[in-house]
Amino acid sequence: MSTVPVLADDALSPEAAAVFADIRATRNTDFVNNFWRALANDPALLKRTWESLKAVMGPGALDPKVKEMLYVAVSIANGCEYCIRSHTTAARAKGMTEAEFMELVAVVGMASETNRIVTALQVPIDPAFMGTGAR
Amino acid sequence: MSTVPVLADDALSPEAAAVFADIRATRNTDFVNNFWRALANDPALLKRTWESLKAVMGPGALDPKVKEMLYVAVSIANGCEYCIRSHTTAARAKGMTEAEFMELVAVVGMASETNRIVTALQVPIDPAFMGTGAR
Amino acid sequence: MSTVPVLADDALSPEAAAVFADIRATRNTDFVNNFWRALANDPALLKRTWESLKAVMGPGALDPKVKEMLYVAVSIANGCEYCIRSHTTAARAKGMTEAEFMELVAVVGMASETNRIVTALQVPIDPAFMGTGAR
Amino acid sequence: MSTVPVLADDALSPEAAAVFADIRATRNTDFVNNFWRALANDPALLKRTWESLKAVMGPGALDPKVKEMLYVAVSIANGCEYCIRSHTTAARAKGMTEAEFMELVAVVGMASETNRIVTALQVPIDPAFMGTGAR
Amino acid sequence: MSTVPVLADDALSPEAAAVFADIRATRNTDFVNNFWRALANDPALLKRTWESLKAVMGPGALDPKVKEMLYVAVSIANGCEYCIRSHTTAARAKGMTEAEFMELVAVVGMASETNRIVTALQVPIDPAFMGTGAR
Amino acid sequence: MSTVPVLADDALSPEAAAVFADIRATRNTDFVNNFWRALANDPALLKRTWESLKAVMGPGALDPKVKEMLYVAVSIANGCEYCIRSHTTAARAKGMTEAEFMELVAVVGMASETNRIVTALQVPIDPAFMGTGAR
Repeated sequence: MSTVPVLADDALSPEAAAVFADIRATRNTDFVNNFWRALANDPALLKRTWESLKAVMGPGALDPKVKEMLYVAVSIANGCEYCIRSHTTAARAKGMTEAEFMELVAVVGMASETNRIVTALQVPIDPAFMGTGAR
Repeated sequence: MSTVPVLADDALSPEAAAVFADIRATRNTDFVNNFWRALANDPALLKRTWESLKAVMGPGALDPKVKEMLYVAVSIANGCEYCIRSHTTAARAKGMTEAEFMELVAVVGMASETNRIVTALQVPIDPAFMGTGAR
Repeated sequence: MSTVPVLADDALSPEAAAVFADIRATRNTDFVNNFWRALANDPALLKRTWESLKAVMGPGALDPKVKEMLYVAVSIANGCEYCIRSHTTAARAKGMTEAEFMELVAVVGMASETNRIVTALQVPIDPAFMGTGAR
Repeated sequence: MSTVPVLADDALSPEAAAVFADIRATRNTDFVNNFWRALANDPALLKRTWESLKAVMGPGALDPKVKEMLYVAVSIANGCEYCIRSHTTAARAKGMTEAEFMELVAVVGMASETNRIVTALQVPIDPAFMGTGAR
Repeated sequence: MSTVPVLADDALSPEAAAVFADIRATRNTDFVNNFWRALANDPALLKRTWESLKAVMGPGALDPKVKEMLYVAVSIANGCEYCIRSHTTAARAKGMTEAEFMELVAVVGMASETNRIVTALQVPIDPAFMGTGAR
Repeated sequence: MSTVPVLADDALSPEAAAVFADIRATRNTDFVNNFWRALANDPALLKRTWESLKAVMGPGALDPKVKEMLYVAVSIANGCEYCIRSHTTAARAKGMTEAEFMELVAVVGMASETNRIVTALQVPIDPAFMGTGAR
């Protein structure tokens, strides 16, 4: 059970209903998942979050599948089960294979291990790693 | 200053020196960064970590650049500055553009925001997201 | 199921029973929630934790409702479902409205997003932010 | 040193310059802190982040000082030094006293302690805490 | 339900089956827990993880019970329920008493509290704490 | 620089001075580290934190060295540099060898890796791990 009501379509405010219409049009499906139904309790937050997500996960420099995989990796590190499941589903829908998922899991595990070892040892940063990407 | 000595080449045990030789051969450079020099205080841990990293980050289902970007994303979520810098450097060396890096940062930020919102609202998992990838 | 027994009133040691009596008197209710019943396996830890909580969450410079909201915000960031639910319940009992709760959620989400962006970009601290509050 | 350039005013794209103008007008100061100067490498991300922050931290149900304190609490839990310092500065500017700050710190510490104890003991959620706030 | 299939013995690849045989021989029991059955979807990751775990948790400088307790402490901090339960079970099997477990929980709670207070106050590191353990 | 003043002895309130006297007597040294000097801005928080720490880290079921090592492990997972350094120093003073420290680091790394892999795969908990330690 959520900490706020998960709103059915007929319980939406007009502003929330308009966002749901855009979600359905953008994704070309009638299905609107529970995340948006819980957010709909605050229509302004719903609208802002949806518009940010649409912009961030939409066309850009990175492949959409790669973006979903980055989302999954962060969700694992942050321990969000709902997010792991929803974005793993999305990544698979965008072509992530099972071999790619297991490799993602291996990278996340390896990074988590070395992140903590580095923190434990307080490794000084090599000058070679201090770049800003500027040319 | 690290919590253990950062070992110079002439302070290595034979087992650690052998790992350093493999790092140099695999990466085709004489440069061995401080992470390995701190780990060298425990040659068995050094060897295990290097061999795992070589296997995980080596050829596989995912593009090497994508793997480095996943590594960076996790390191951001875990707050490891050394790891962010070293793997951002590696990702750039493998072709990550500045536009791709900023997009990675946007995805990590967005995921972190929605991860916490989902946790706050305790959103119930939609049955559509409960797949295992099995067919 | 918890990792230690959740103790019923008749299973309490005398020291734990005395703490339960103080919880009941302080809160003016017979209800003692499961957190204390699990802690009661270590009466000294139970007593110390209760006395700290009573002092921290009692009268002070901040409004009790605000303190509960800070507690909820931290519990979201730390991913503790039990704590989110129990302190959201407490905050509502102390007057938090649903609009305030959704605004809290928006702030927690926003902070989590910018926390990670700042970490990713390793933004240098502006001198203007280096104050200690001393005059 | 940041992982991307911290842009001076004369290095901004027109879209980024427009956001800086709005930051200056909204805050009624010429000072634009480094967070925005690093974000300016991706003008779309800069604009989205600024507009979200302006909306979330602007007038609403909660006192602006309380919102800054929630921001600080989350930033502590996420370990972001820059964010702790910038939002503590903002909270002080909005009236947070030193006694209030120390009380915030005490609440964050207490919540972090009990969050972990609850997780360790896997305390079952009391039915009384399962509300959604709906009436 | 897991995000990948939990494999029964008759669904294992030959390489995974060989790892399971070593798990059974090393632990002297026919029981193989679900962690390995999920990992078995990627036999190379399964093999690497098992061999690392066997090496890290095997005979060394620290008592095996202490190693399991350190594992539990980290798992609490990282919020992994499965890991808390499996390694608490292992620690108990290696002799951890209930008094020791509650003391572990108290230390984890205390450390989490002071970790966050230190971060909030940005306490400068005393020179006396800057040692590397070298003599 | 800290976010609150680090108080010298002559800036202490009488209540804070009394706590410092107990720290010095208990530890049998004149040295009082910066953590307490920052906490001294809130004498009640200082007193409560010191008394809890003294109780938790004092004589009990676990070896004092093991308690310090648990403290270090949690501090690594929480990313608190000050705490890692101060409690590593304390653990070394209580007899932790360099081999034991590196083994601790290996366990923390291993646990962090498997914690995330378990979270990624959402491994179902084996019934054998559901014990409460009760007999």
